Amino acid sequence: MADTRFFRRKGPFSVAEIAELTGAEVLNAPDKARVFDDVSPLQNADDSILSFLDNRKYIDAFVNSKAGACFIRPEFADRAPEGMVLFTTNDPYRAYAKAATAFYPFETGNGSISDRAFIDPTAKLGKGVQVDAGAVISANCEIGDGTIIASNAVIGEGVVIGAGCKVGANASISHSLIGNLCLIYPGARIGQDGFGFAMGPQGHVKVPQLGRVVIGNDVEVGANSTIDRGAGPDTVIGNGCRIDNLVQIGHNVELGMGCVVVSQVGISGSTKLGNFVVLAGQVGVAGHLEIGDGVKVAAQSGVMRNIGPGETVGGSPAVPVMEYHKQTVALSRLVRKKK
Amino acid sequence: MADTRFFRRKGPFSVAEIAELTGAEVLNAPDKARVFDDVSPLQNADDSILSFLDNRKYIDAFVNSKAGACFIRPEFADRAPEGMVLFTTNDPYRAYAKAATAFYPFETGNGSISDRAFIDPTAKLGKGVQVDAGAVISANCEIGDGTIIASNAVIGEGVVIGAGCKVGANASISHSLIGNLCLIYPGARIGQDGFGFAMGPQGHVKVPQLGRVVIGNDVEVGANSTIDRGAGPDTVIGNGCRIDNLVQIGHNVELGMGCVVVSQVGISGSTKLGNFVVLAGQVGVAGHLEIGDGVKVAAQSGVMRNIGPGETVGGSPAVPVMEYHKQTVALSRLVRKKK
Amino acid sequence: MADTRFFRRKGPFSVAEIAELTGAEVLNAPDKARVFDDVSPLQNADDSILSFLDNRKYIDAFVNSKAGACFIRPEFADRAPEGMVLFTTNDPYRAYAKAATAFYPFETGNGSISDRAFIDPTAKLGKGVQVDAGAVISANCEIGDGTIIASNAVIGEGVVIGAGCKVGANASISHSLIGNLCLIYPGARIGQDGFGFAMGPQGHVKVPQLGRVVIGNDVEVGANSTIDRGAGPDTVIGNGCRIDNLVQIGHNVELGMGCVVVSQVGISGSTKLGNFVVLAGQVGVAGHLEIGDGVKVAAQSGVMRNIGPGETVGGSPAVPVMEYHKQTVALSRLVRKKK
Repeated sequence: MADTRFFRRKGPFSVAEIAELTGAEVLNAPDKARVFDDVSPLQNADDSILSFLDNRKYIDAFVNSKAGACFIRPEFADRAPEGMVLFTTNDPYRAYAKAATAFYPFETGNGSISDRAFIDPTAKLGKGVQVDAGAVISANCEIGDGTIIASNAVIGEGVVIGAGCKVGANASISHSLIGNLCLIYPGARIGQDGFGFAMGPQGHVKVPQLGRVVIGNDVEVGANSTIDRGAGPDTVIGNGCRIDNLVQIGHNVELGMGCVVVSQVGISGSTKLGNFVVLAGQVGVAGHLEIGDGVKVAAQSGVMRNIGPGETVGGSPAVPVMEYHKQTVALSRLVRKKK
Repeated sequence: MADTRFFRRKGPFSVAEIAELTGAEVLNAPDKARVFDDVSPLQNADDSILSFLDNRKYIDAFVNSKAGACFIRPEFADRAPEGMVLFTTNDPYRAYAKAATAFYPFETGNGSISDRAFIDPTAKLGKGVQVDAGAVISANCEIGDGTIIASNAVIGEGVVIGAGCKVGANASISHSLIGNLCLIYPGARIGQDGFGFAMGPQGHVKVPQLGRVVIGNDVEVGANSTIDRGAGPDTVIGNGCRIDNLVQIGHNVELGMGCVVVSQVGISGSTKLGNFVVLAGQVGVAGHLEIGDGVKVAAQSGVMRNIGPGETVGGSPAVPVMEYHKQTVALSRLVRKKK
Repeated sequence: MADTRFFRRKGPFSVAEIAELTGAEVLNAPDKARVFDDVSPLQNADDSILSFLDNRKYIDAFVNSKAGACFIRPEFADRAPEGMVLFTTNDPYRAYAKAATAFYPFETGNGSISDRAFIDPTAKLGKGVQVDAGAVISANCEIGDGTIIASNAVIGEGVVIGAGCKVGANASISHSLIGNLCLIYPGARIGQDGFGFAMGPQGHVKVPQLGRVVIGNDVEVGANSTIDRGAGPDTVIGNGCRIDNLVQIGHNVELGMGCVVVSQVGISGSTKLGNFVVLAGQVGVAGHLEIGDGVKVAAQSGVMRNIGPGETVGGSPAVPVMEYHKQTVALSRLVRKKK
């Protein structure tokens, strides 16, 4: 059960409510009014708990679980322990996500404005906006309804942030337009100058960075990640993107919709990603490239050329992932031969 | 055109003024008093706009551009569209940087001190120093003329910062001496303890870190980058260095003049770089090494040995770059043979 | 000598006191009451200074040093310059660490609470707690005796921090329980949501992250590092761990005792490290793995499988380190053959 010092639970919710909420089919539930009190992993669950089985690897935990109810794929229904209520669906993790969010809803602004915050009188705040101690909101900002600006976050002049967002503690945002329902994690840096200068032996001359960062709706930017503003064109992050911690996104980079960028990835200036691209941890992508829709890049890879839609690549420099695996095997054989 | 919510433009500037400012030669300008209103990339320019052609790849954009004026290399002059004023120079990007800076000058302190800032009474602030809301300036600090300390930045006891600098939002600096005209980006961490301890199976014992960070003039330190102070000797960053976002610089590291350190590079303790070294993105450099003047290291490389002046290296472990490319090719052939 | 703007020295300490403090044996000291004023590296030392020789590489510096006293291994005693007091021990660096800490003790809270800090009235602060300007301590926090919360740090609701800790400038902590004697460096992010969502072509659905971060005693978390809270189970950092700057630790990760995690390492979700594991710089570890006690991983390696206790591995994907070195050699030979 979640630590009540940190989490506040709603509920309970009935079988009928959970089915309604998630679209799952109900099996094994004689009493649709039966309620569940909480969510938890299979191992720790008792009969008041709603759990889920997503990864087939955990089938034993499922078979032996004391959970009162479980989201599962239909094909596992006949493995369920006796008496367990089953919610069947082809995407049990997604259904669990929705149910868990009912028990533990995401925070929204409570309308309180700390007297230790600094808000420029020209800033426009929507209904229910919450501004915590030490936060700074500069001149001409616009903050949408229900958005939270957490402690010691700094919102620069003219920045526009949509409704239902949260900007985490100590984050800073400048030169940016941000959509609705975005989560900017603590310490994220958005909108500062890109790394632009004319190099030369007599010294490097800084080039004014005259673009912005434009972020769509339902985007997450992880803790201590950095997104530089454009040099002239904008840096653009599409709707639904998920950016993990300590990620670097250079100036003029564009991400399509629904991209997933795992921790410590770096994307160099002016590179463009299509929709639903997945970059695994510590990947580096060189500048001025085009990465197609649905491309997947294995962890620690270095992408040095354009990648066509749907390709999966790995290695540094990155090649098609099957070739990368063969390289690994070949290298390992080479060594064994030399023994 | 730059978004006026974020950028304030100066100008217009005449042909004569732009030539004076940049040292470029003027061609095709019957009227030296003709003025230009703004700068922009070639694609979006109209006849009131000053643009530039640096990369030969964009020659088509140049030929078809409606820009009123353009910085170019002399050899492209005869490809110019009719009526375009030409500023010829061997380094058009540098000339553009200077002109763009005239239109969009870098910020300098406006002399305002927020009543929401905390400034220790023993701190000494120069003329025109600007201190924004939530910034903290500790005892015995010295801040030079025209320097900006942005919101929620924290300057530790005794720190000296020169004139014309900007310390970004939420950055923190301790145990450091910083020159003039430095830009410290949001969230940068400068001067904290290095990673120094005596390891042992009965526990690790922390070693006091008794050095400083000493930064020259005209240095940039990127967003969320970290520079640890020396353990006894100092950590030193030479004049004119450019350090990108999320870079780690360990204790006792020394960088010569004009080094360029791209995002997510890590330089381990006590390593010394010469002048004008370039480390591309995600490079790692082991500790206690000497990297000569003008060395270039390819992205994602791992440098495990000393590198002589002027060498270009790549790979992990890094080898001369031609050898690295051959390794890549050889590995790829090996796989093809095995098919 | 350490810069007095930044460091305050205690002492002097006598031969007898230093021997007592460090457990080292004394040689060559006719006068046990003789005092030393400071510590420093061998090169800069004069006869008032206590130094150390740890790395045999610096034996020449030792032979020629003017230091008044030195920690050394017994076998180097006969190489000492005439008149130098010798403290012999099998771990001179550890002895030096203890002596240096006597001269330059670590900070502890001075009991001052800035009137520019914001402390919720329900928070409980121990004796001697120091809270600097701009720090925020939220509802129901508990802060142990002598702990320092530096400027603009943000401590979220319900967080528990033990005694003798320091939370650096601009760090943020939420959903966490932290032991005694921990150092959280500036800009560290602890306890934010993990990177958890149900992926899908119709959009990614965020999964509530209901665990915590639980940190033992005597742990360091480096500048701008990020530790996400658990998704259901907790993220756990064992006693005595040392985590460097810009490290990413995913949700549900567990570290045993005394692990050393060097800068820019990333550890993916649900991976478990045993005791005294060492991950060198820029290593990546995939999710859901078990890494045994005493494992060492070479810099920039990518760990993609479980590693048994005591193994040393390298490369990406990581293999036993001898095999990794052979691969490097084999690849380099392959290229030479092709010339």
